[in-house]
Amino acid sequence: MTAEWIVPVILSGGSGTRLWPRSRVELPKPFLPLLGDDTLFEATLARCADERHFAAPMIVTGARHLPHVEAQAPAEAELIIEPEGKNTAPAIALAAQRLPGDAVMLVCPSDHHIADEGAFLDAARAAARLAREGWLVAFGIEPDGPETGFGYIRRGEAIPGGFRIASFVEKPDLATAERFLDEGGYSWNSGLFAFRADRYLQELARHRPAMADKVRLAVIEGHGDGRKFFPEMHAFSQIEAESVDYAVMEETDRAAMVPAAMGWSDIGNWDALFDARARDASGNCALGPAELVDCRNVMVDSDGPRVSVIGLENVVVVVHDGEVLVTTREGAQQVGKLTGATSQ
Amino acid sequence: MTAEWIVPVILSGGSGTRLWPRSRVELPKPFLPLLGDDTLFEATLARCADERHFAAPMIVTGARHLPHVEAQAPAEAELIIEPEGKNTAPAIALAAQRLPGDAVMLVCPSDHHIADEGAFLDAARAAARLAREGWLVAFGIEPDGPETGFGYIRRGEAIPGGFRIASFVEKPDLATAERFLDEGGYSWNSGLFAFRADRYLQELARHRPAMADKVRLAVIEGHGDGRKFFPEMHAFSQIEAESVDYAVMEETDRAAMVPAAMGWSDIGNWDALFDARARDASGNCALGPAELVDCRNVMVDSDGPRVSVIGLENVVVVVHDGEVLVTTREGAQQVGKLTGATSQ
Repeated sequence: MTAEWIVPVILSGGSGTRLWPRSRVELPKPFLPLLGDDTLFEATLARCADERHFAAPMIVTGARHLPHVEAQAPAEAELIIEPEGKNTAPAIALAAQRLPGDAVMLVCPSDHHIADEGAFLDAARAAARLAREGWLVAFGIEPDGPETGFGYIRRGEAIPGGFRIASFVEKPDLATAERFLDEGGYSWNSGLFAFRADRYLQELARHRPAMADKVRLAVIEGHGDGRKFFPEMHAFSQIEAESVDYAVMEETDRAAMVPAAMGWSDIGNWDALFDARARDASGNCALGPAELVDCRNVMVDSDGPRVSVIGLENVVVVVHDGEVLVTTREGAQQVGKLTGATSQ
Repeated sequence: MTAEWIVPVILSGGSGTRLWPRSRVELPKPFLPLLGDDTLFEATLARCADERHFAAPMIVTGARHLPHVEAQAPAEAELIIEPEGKNTAPAIALAAQRLPGDAVMLVCPSDHHIADEGAFLDAARAAARLAREGWLVAFGIEPDGPETGFGYIRRGEAIPGGFRIASFVEKPDLATAERFLDEGGYSWNSGLFAFRADRYLQELARHRPAMADKVRLAVIEGHGDGRKFFPEMHAFSQIEAESVDYAVMEETDRAAMVPAAMGWSDIGNWDALFDARARDASGNCALGPAELVDCRNVMVDSDGPRVSVIGLENVVVVVHDGEVLVTTREGAQQVGKLTGATSQ
């Protein structure tokens, strides 16, 4: 590993409810080819595969999804298998414990879409430069609308290559989100981060000492099996689940952000997936056999049965594995609460 | 058969496209239990089963649907199997040829719904009385909206028990249909008729002599097999297909109508079927497993797969035999033109 390398740390999991019935608990979003032939997980790995910039990836996952990870990850990847899900702060800490202190980690959720890979690489390199200087770096996405489904980052003073973070803001209501857009200086918190491994562990030890201890113990007492590493179950189970945002980013006084305009989407629901897919002149988009008559902005996603749609606008129809979902684009946010999604 | 009896003549066929994918060419609308446990065909027979008023029914059908007819018709029914479909005028003529001249025929399509059976019986008896006097009688349905999918009947002078028919009007455009409602005196032409058998044949011989001849020949040279009767194929094939409306009702100067307010529907498309089904307080209606969230006036009809719908209004979702249809209520009229419906 050279000093310039970046270690991709891919966080892989998901509950499989928001893109139900296409995503399932047993086969959640990262492992599905939702955009093109690659799964989102494969595309995430491919974005970080250029050997001029990236070391071999480290993938943190759970036992449940390990078969998908093993099938889709490259041979050189190290896999860390969490005994149970504890949110992102402990997952990142496991990876940090397994890396040299001066390694720069690029933390990537495995179920996001990034349309502009060149812009992603530029942002990753900018973030890595700041991380090398000791900053804990978030990627801030320029908002293109008053989204209420994301947390926001408020920019502070400029620093070379980015900005200090003035504050993190929880998912706002619509009026607040609109105000953020009017005021400017706010970005979406994308869930992508860059840290030096030692700096992350230092900040964690300072702000969440119990978590840091338990993770260290789980790694010391864990065991390897080929490219797989299994943290010790008992120590890990005592950790209180918490996100990296809460446990580290909001606590540290060295939080920075790099602005990233890279066609990012978290593919957080069917509406977001629709936005990321190519459409015809009527705004329609069909995967699988479909006939659309007098439709505008209708997306069909079928795993086999023909779907015939007449006269609809801004609607998504999904047919998968014996389940049929029909929702307005607006209603897509409620898919995760459907009986079909929650009773899997 | 007493002089007061009415002979139900049930016309049974259908192309199976307008209620696709539930109806199919091989299993069209009459033979499906679309409203309750009985099929529309069974319900049609049950409406005419009271022995105080009705003789055994005569059913005119085609070879293709004979298995369904035999399975669903009562043992005492006579079945006339047309060698090919020639529209309604020849079908009714076949039945008339097989009946005594003074028999009063009540011609019933087998795929309509009538909610008020008492009102139907009253109208049938009123029509039969006029028919016995030599009138050719149509049932006129009081319009409850400017429907453009039906032909209209304009009432003429009152006669005892009904009205003369002033004229028949082809399916109107919306403006014309609205004018009809404003003016009054217009009824929908329901496709239900009553004739004495001899009067029907007399009028047919006068206005369509070639058709009358060929039907007579087809019956003379036809053959029976138990309760089934097969008209001779060659003679029947030479008949020019035509509806009873054109061939007889519009031609005769003895056309009459009885007004009928009996909750009639031709169940002509999914929208009409929706109207005939019971709904919940939100106007929704679900047959088969369904979850409806934030929906109003949504109908789901599924033969197995769960259908989850979010945020829609005035939409019909049908899942049947591996086909999925999603249409606005307005768009339901276009279902018959879908590839799935026309390529069966």
